[in-house]
Amino acid sequence: MDSLDNIIKNRLNKDQLKQFNKIYYGTEDNCELELKESTKAESVKGNFEVAGYSFIAKKEELRKPNVLRLGLIQHSIVLPTDKPISEQRQAIFKKIEKIIEVAASEDVRILCLQETWTMPFFLCTGEKEKWEEFAEPAINGPSTLFLSKLAKQYEMVIISPILERDEDGKWWNTAVVIDEKGDYIGKHRKNHLPSVGSYSETSYYAPGNLGHPVFDTKYGKIAVNICYGRHHALNWLMFGLNGAQIVFNPAATIAEFGETFWGIEARTAAIANHYFTCSINRVGTEEYFINKDKKVRTYYGSSYVTAPNGCRTPGLSKDRDGLLIVELDLNLCRQVRDQWGFNMTSRLDVYAKSIEKKLCP
Amino acid sequence: MDSLDNIIKNRLNKDQLKQFNKIYYGTEDNCELELKESTKAESVKGNFEVAGYSFIAKKEELRKPNVLRLGLIQHSIVLPTDKPISEQRQAIFKKIEKIIEVAASEDVRILCLQETWTMPFFLCTGEKEKWEEFAEPAINGPSTLFLSKLAKQYEMVIISPILERDEDGKWWNTAVVIDEKGDYIGKHRKNHLPSVGSYSETSYYAPGNLGHPVFDTKYGKIAVNICYGRHHALNWLMFGLNGAQIVFNPAATIAEFGETFWGIEARTAAIANHYFTCSINRVGTEEYFINKDKKVRTYYGSSYVTAPNGCRTPGLSKDRDGLLIVELDLNLCRQVRDQWGFNMTSRLDVYAKSIEKKLCP
Repeated sequence: MDSLDNIIKNRLNKDQLKQFNKIYYGTEDNCELELKESTKAESVKGNFEVAGYSFIAKKEELRKPNVLRLGLIQHSIVLPTDKPISEQRQAIFKKIEKIIEVAASEDVRILCLQETWTMPFFLCTGEKEKWEEFAEPAINGPSTLFLSKLAKQYEMVIISPILERDEDGKWWNTAVVIDEKGDYIGKHRKNHLPSVGSYSETSYYAPGNLGHPVFDTKYGKIAVNICYGRHHALNWLMFGLNGAQIVFNPAATIAEFGETFWGIEARTAAIANHYFTCSINRVGTEEYFINKDKKVRTYYGSSYVTAPNGCRTPGLSKDRDGLLIVELDLNLCRQVRDQWGFNMTSRLDVYAKSIEKKLCP
Repeated sequence: MDSLDNIIKNRLNKDQLKQFNKIYYGTEDNCELELKESTKAESVKGNFEVAGYSFIAKKEELRKPNVLRLGLIQHSIVLPTDKPISEQRQAIFKKIEKIIEVAASEDVRILCLQETWTMPFFLCTGEKEKWEEFAEPAINGPSTLFLSKLAKQYEMVIISPILERDEDGKWWNTAVVIDEKGDYIGKHRKNHLPSVGSYSETSYYAPGNLGHPVFDTKYGKIAVNICYGRHHALNWLMFGLNGAQIVFNPAATIAEFGETFWGIEARTAAIANHYFTCSINRVGTEEYFINKDKKVRTYYGSSYVTAPNGCRTPGLSKDRDGLLIVELDLNLCRQVRDQWGFNMTSRLDVYAKSIEKKLCP
């Protein structure tokens, strides 16, 4: 299960690789980050991949560079899905704690985890079983408490996509945002719910009712477009109109479902809305036992980041835990917007009317 | 200037190629069309490339297959840009006539030419010079008359993107649609105008005032999204909401300008809106002399077609005239829509309100 990125790297000669890179990644040479020896050592010890890339912006006269590092974590669950809930969760916490420590040592300032990162992705089984106990409050729930401590310790903004159970007992597919002081600063709830094959998520939680919030953090303006929301151009658009510089797309998706789309939808959104997009997908094979029937799902990882100019990093592996570190200059958002003018030529007034008319002919 | 498609084909082994194809084209094996010997002979004689592919749909119980062939033509200009207008145009007509004849012999039912196909793309020079004389009426203009004859003769729907000069002398970047009887049935005018680098097209023609028409032809429901309009997700969306099964994107674009985006934007649109997209870009190097200054632009071709399921054909070459023939089953549109449900989960009411609010806060 070698990644496309690796296959290509090993088969093309230098000139061919440059041309491939230009089309496929948007840049002739992927700019790799020099990572610390300790990072490499920890990744071997912890059996997870680490990769680092950087995106460059032009030097400006009036604005200083606005450089920071993002971290994306893709991971598998640790224990079988029939083990006690608290043990399953604790095992994931333990693994993630180590990877976040490494991210912190590399000066990652904003970090995002995958969709419902605390649990097996049972939402694609059509069943709830005892797994329903993974749902937790956004504020003061176990995962928020766990990450708040790390966020404060490392002065890191952390996005934590969880299954939320609110005070009325209603479920939501939610991304909690914790700031660098360890404080909860808000949340986004998944706007578009799939009903595709066994992914019948409408039977679990309600469509997001919080619109398209952008969180103005110490390190940048960030937003979250959860999983299936990436298929909806208007969802991406609204985060852009609301000022996002970086939009994270935490996901849980399997090869039968649109691996073909994975590398292009978030990338097209980055271009159209002149922001960075960060695509995160879980890895590993999960087995769900339902009335003695076994259901198996394998997730393909391949997490990557795209810059507003359409350049993207190679993806993390398809089957290993991984930490992707990306250094970027937020100035690139405005530079690309000024160059392409997509916002100046968007004619939103025309579309507001056209859509309205389509809804009420 | 070998295309990425060719580089890859010659360098990967069979298994690697399958994996590459799956990610890059959306299918492990591109399904090539068997073309006639006479087609191959004519393409050698006329020095143009011919390539054919097919997309398969599932057999249904209640609907018959709805199979047809599309043709896309990419071409260079023939004479230098300082030759007399009528000679330049006539030379292009002559070349195109031959390629359309070959398309007809292969049973192409809907054919689309590139943006402003009758002329050098002087719109990227910032100058008008005598080239302004290429602008022509949509009805009974020289290119409409020329193509109407061929459309009737071959019972072919032809989309003819031209520079339009209307009865008030106003210019538009227009796609004329001619039906299989040779009759003019309508036109679309480019909605989004670039002001990027030397592409300052707002100084030539006005933003489209005809919305997002879909033409219900004998062979299928078709629409045209001209060039820079492909960067605007809402433009693609409206053609979809209006019922398009095939959207053509005739363009004139150079490598410095988003060759990186070329392969992904129309493809993302095909997926999001469950229709076929057909991307056509001119080829060749054009020299424009303005007050003795020479400006040179090289267009990169790479025309391709994407199916609603995200599968795409390889691109035509980067530097040769070419005819791309694609056999497809229009039933695939509904099949993919039913599978993915993007239209059922689009929450357009939310967006109509959000965009409106953004415009009038």
